[in-house]
Amino acid sequence: MDSHARSELCPRYHRAVELIGRRWTGAIVRTLMHGPHRFNELLTAIPGISDRLLTERLRELENADIVRREVRAESPVRVIYELTTSGIELGPALDEIARWAERWIEIPPEAANQ
Amino acid sequence: MDSHARSELCPRYHRAVELIGRRWTGAIVRTLMHGPHRFNELLTAIPGISDRLLTERLRELENADIVRREVRAESPVRVIYELTTSGIELGPALDEIARWAERWIEIPPEAANQ
Repeated sequence: MDSHARSELCPRYHRAVELIGRRWTGAIVRTLMHGPHRFNELLTAIPGISDRLLTERLRELENADIVRREVRAESPVRVIYELTTSGIELGPALDEIARWAERWIEIPPEAANQ
Repeated sequence: MDSHARSELCPRYHRAVELIGRRWTGAIVRTLMHGPHRFNELLTAIPGISDRLLTERLRELENADIVRREVRAESPVRVIYELTTSGIELGPALDEIARWAERWIEIPPEAANQ
């Protein structure tokens, strides 16, 4: 196997693809590409996600240093979530996935209208 | 929410990202980017994957029309796996993920040497 093929299968790539592929992760990151959001704003922007799952995914994304949680000392205090530099740089990968999905994934009409 | 944001969260995108994100899927597709492979060649090219998981993932990828299984009428008969057009067009997305992973994912030295 050439070195190109070896590097494709490296643990870094594995970890990235599994991180991005978790249910809702892509939706959360793409929503945050539009700017910082509060928890409830994310909940509204991502139809179908539950409180519990959003909390869980945000924590994973914080641990992976893709999302930063910031407490803003306003009155009342505001907690906002925003992308780190690493998170912002995920943009091109997620865009490519979206482009591919537009072109190749077929959804039955009932599911698309849900 | 603008239409751009809505389309990002569409069922197509969800399905694509979850498909790509399944364990080993990225490795299988990237290996097949180098050309058609037989089952045992894939097994060798992807260290750590088991027979059972490779079979399962190949079937999923066939169902998603990303991989095609072809029986070649040679003697002995050869079964090969190759990418469909849709599979080939996943290339840019997987490349972007690999680029991001190179840059941002840190692996402890012990894990990297496994």
